[in-house]
Amino acid sequence: MQVLVVNCGSSSIKYQLLNMETEAVLAKGLVDRIGLEGSVLTHQPEGMDKVVVEADIFNHSVGIKMVLEALIDANHGVISAMSDINAVGHRIVSGGEKFAASVLVAPEVKEGIIECYDMAPLHNPAHMLGINACEELMPGVPQVVVFDNAFHQTMPKHAFMYGLPYEIYEKYHVRKYGAHGTSHRYVAQRAAEFLERPQEELKLITCHLGNGSSITAVKGGHSVDTSMGFTPLEGLIMGTRCGDIDPAVIPYVMKKEGFTPEQMDTFM
Amino acid sequence: MQVLVVNCGSSSIKYQLLNMETEAVLAKGLVDRIGLEGSVLTHQPEGMDKVVVEADIFNHSVGIKMVLEALIDANHGVISAMSDINAVGHRIVSGGEKFAASVLVAPEVKEGIIECYDMAPLHNPAHMLGINACEELMPGVPQVVVFDNAFHQTMPKHAFMYGLPYEIYEKYHVRKYGAHGTSHRYVAQRAAEFLERPQEELKLITCHLGNGSSITAVKGGHSVDTSMGFTPLEGLIMGTRCGDIDPAVIPYVMKKEGFTPEQMDTFM
Repeated sequence: MQVLVVNCGSSSIKYQLLNMETEAVLAKGLVDRIGLEGSVLTHQPEGMDKVVVEADIFNHSVGIKMVLEALIDANHGVISAMSDINAVGHRIVSGGEKFAASVLVAPEVKEGIIECYDMAPLHNPAHMLGINACEELMPGVPQVVVFDNAFHQTMPKHAFMYGLPYEIYEKYHVRKYGAHGTSHRYVAQRAAEFLERPQEELKLITCHLGNGSSITAVKGGHSVDTSMGFTPLEGLIMGTRCGDIDPAVIPYVMKKEGFTPEQMDTFM
Repeated sequence: MQVLVVNCGSSSIKYQLLNMETEAVLAKGLVDRIGLEGSVLTHQPEGMDKVVVEADIFNHSVGIKMVLEALIDANHGVISAMSDINAVGHRIVSGGEKFAASVLVAPEVKEGIIECYDMAPLHNPAHMLGINACEELMPGVPQVVVFDNAFHQTMPKHAFMYGLPYEIYEKYHVRKYGAHGTSHRYVAQRAAEFLERPQEELKLITCHLGNGSSITAVKGGHSVDTSMGFTPLEGLIMGTRCGDIDPAVIPYVMKKEGFTPEQMDTFM
């Protein structure tokens, strides 16, 4: 069984084709600068030379089509036909409060992802482009959406509510959602394996450390608190994110520097 | 030896007269609504009835004068003459990075407090009014300023710097200063006494829990990190302060609600 995993950004598609029996990566690559000048596919079949294809990639549908063609190409392909792809997995940044686990794509699931646009305005719309492109090009192939924050939906209220008026939660869904959920879940599982103890007994602190970083408290296999919040800006100091700061610093610096909310957001 | 302790706010003066040998509070009280309609002194001599004096209290100098008169009053006074007050202690909200301990008031100390106005715009100017009023009314009596954040000046850089561009620290002194320093220092000392161990050996977490709340990591008697930041807004959720939130929530809510920086500051 082969699964195509895709992570669609606003102008990019990262992908891997995995053989699920061996867990081997058969090929991976990146479609970059979709809809922009200099759009390009970089395709890396396992054990073969990298292939770079420069082409006009107008939209995500064209991008996904190029990926599929690269995968079945006579020279640098790794499968013989598109029908060898048995399922597609999409990474989705925000499932808001709607999704606490990965699910098969269905019309109501797509609606739910659209309802979460406000929580991930750059990412969720791009993910939908990828889902629609795959549905169009691979009709009948099951697609699964894997939410980056679903693992944290087990957080109790006292962990996810901010000390702001409740109406801000009701009106704008402002609360802690966390991120890196797939990573924290995996690390917690692996830690239990290494410790040779059931997850149910364990209280762990899992660390996802990279350019973006977060830590999570995992109790009995469930996230009970995490450092990232409404967005990935909260928590640890990161490569391009300030992490936790005194909230009063923000209006203070905005006044001093004459920043708009957008400029301040970028500044942080 | 008697010490008058005062905490001057923008329109109030809280005070206590202490006998330092017995640590007894001889009298305490509040001058309220200075410069406003309905200004009033409430004076509570120890073991006697409370005295309420309604009067036009134009400024802090008039307020301090009323306090001194109440303390030496034939009926409800607790000392026989103003010369029985041997020293005055002023609580000062912010000493910025200039003061790491309590100091005797001198011209350069007053300049330092003035330079910290920006860090405590409501408090430090009021404190200066109180210092000047006491100097005027009690010439020659030593005055000591006790800074609310001096205890935290031992924090290392990695604890007090935010993940913001360094120029924000250089231009506006934006960093973590902490607060409740006198309380955390006292609690750490008392904890060492209860534990019957020298402070130098101890690693403590001290909690100041009230309407305003903060926690501090105290290592060997020195503050090494604390929950309050540039202002007292950071850290724990409090009675009237949101505490830590995702910084990205602030421009988000400002845009949604059309708030100015000032309005957002008040909202938090």
